[in-house]
Amino acid sequence: MKKIYLAGPEVFLPNAKEIGEKKKKLCEKYGFEGIFPLDNEIDVSKLTPHEIGLIIGAVNESLIQICDLVIANITPFRSPSLDVGTAYEIGYAKASNLTIFAYSTTSELFSERVSLFLGLDIRAKTDRMGMQIERFEMVDNLMIDGGIIGSSGNIILTDVSSLKEKYTDLDGFEKCLILAKEKFG
Amino acid sequence: MKKIYLAGPEVFLPNAKEIGEKKKKLCEKYGFEGIFPLDNEIDVSKLTPHEIGLIIGAVNESLIQICDLVIANITPFRSPSLDVGTAYEIGYAKASNLTIFAYSTTSELFSERVSLFLGLDIRAKTDRMGMQIERFEMVDNLMIDGGIIGSSGNIILTDVSSLKEKYTDLDGFEKCLILAKEKFG
Repeated sequence: MKKIYLAGPEVFLPNAKEIGEKKKKLCEKYGFEGIFPLDNEIDVSKLTPHEIGLIIGAVNESLIQICDLVIANITPFRSPSLDVGTAYEIGYAKASNLTIFAYSTTSELFSERVSLFLGLDIRAKTDRMGMQIERFEMVDNLMIDGGIIGSSGNIILTDVSSLKEKYTDLDGFEKCLILAKEKFG
Repeated sequence: MKKIYLAGPEVFLPNAKEIGEKKKKLCEKYGFEGIFPLDNEIDVSKLTPHEIGLIIGAVNESLIQICDLVIANITPFRSPSLDVGTAYEIGYAKASNLTIFAYSTTSELFSERVSLFLGLDIRAKTDRMGMQIERFEMVDNLMIDGGIIGSSGNIILTDVSSLKEKYTDLDGFEKCLILAKEKFG
């Protein structure tokens, strides 16, 4: 059974485990095994927070290594872009030759989100420091879209208006599973 | 001569090429060859912006593949975190077994930056949606710090107060070169 690494910022949700279990069940439904990353689950009293963080990072890399594909939640997180931990994992997975599927609960283009975030006109080409606003008709920074498409994966966009469901809605996730099953099933 | 991939958001600066040249000269000074990523430099009239973006992403990945190490500018970019393209490249480089050095022009901890960005108390453990604020005494998300430290690299923090020099100051970059020379020189 092919293994899917479940990347995304839902590890930070108060009900992260519950979401992880839901995702794993959906993976099973499509004939895959879902692997949910660790986040705050290591509790060894003799270690410093920094040491614990390093261990979690190393464990998550090993989990990616044993997987065949990734489904990443690239919904913007505390910025116009996806969570940077997820960005790292997509890059790590791409270099490890995994196929990467991704979903986001907004269909706005990256260029639009950056402009809105900075309070600029939606067609702005640069920010107030003169720094370029990427306009490649992409979902996020070109390395992210490029890595996913280049891995023979795909990006699914939905529009979830409820803030509460922004990181928990699994419609896009299930659509990724359907594509993954077509490819690997 | 060992090759260094020069990752960071300075590709978005209006004088990106000039900064790239400065960085390459500093690399030479320490016995390395610096490789600056492409950004907006492909101009083929028959291609769509999306196609150009995909090509740039693929070229940057190949550039990382031919390098021995990375020096990444992880200064926060339009968010409490580093540029997501740089995060992707660090992950890609880690999985490709490169050594990664990084620098930031702020010495604030990640947890402090996230809290300030969200307008919360500096010791806040969660945001308004109940989502965890990572408190691992790290420079950024634990995958970033973990990837860099785990690659036998290091993170250099400086404090650049001038907004204008936030992405152009090269003190931290040169300190990374000194460490790289100690390790590889």
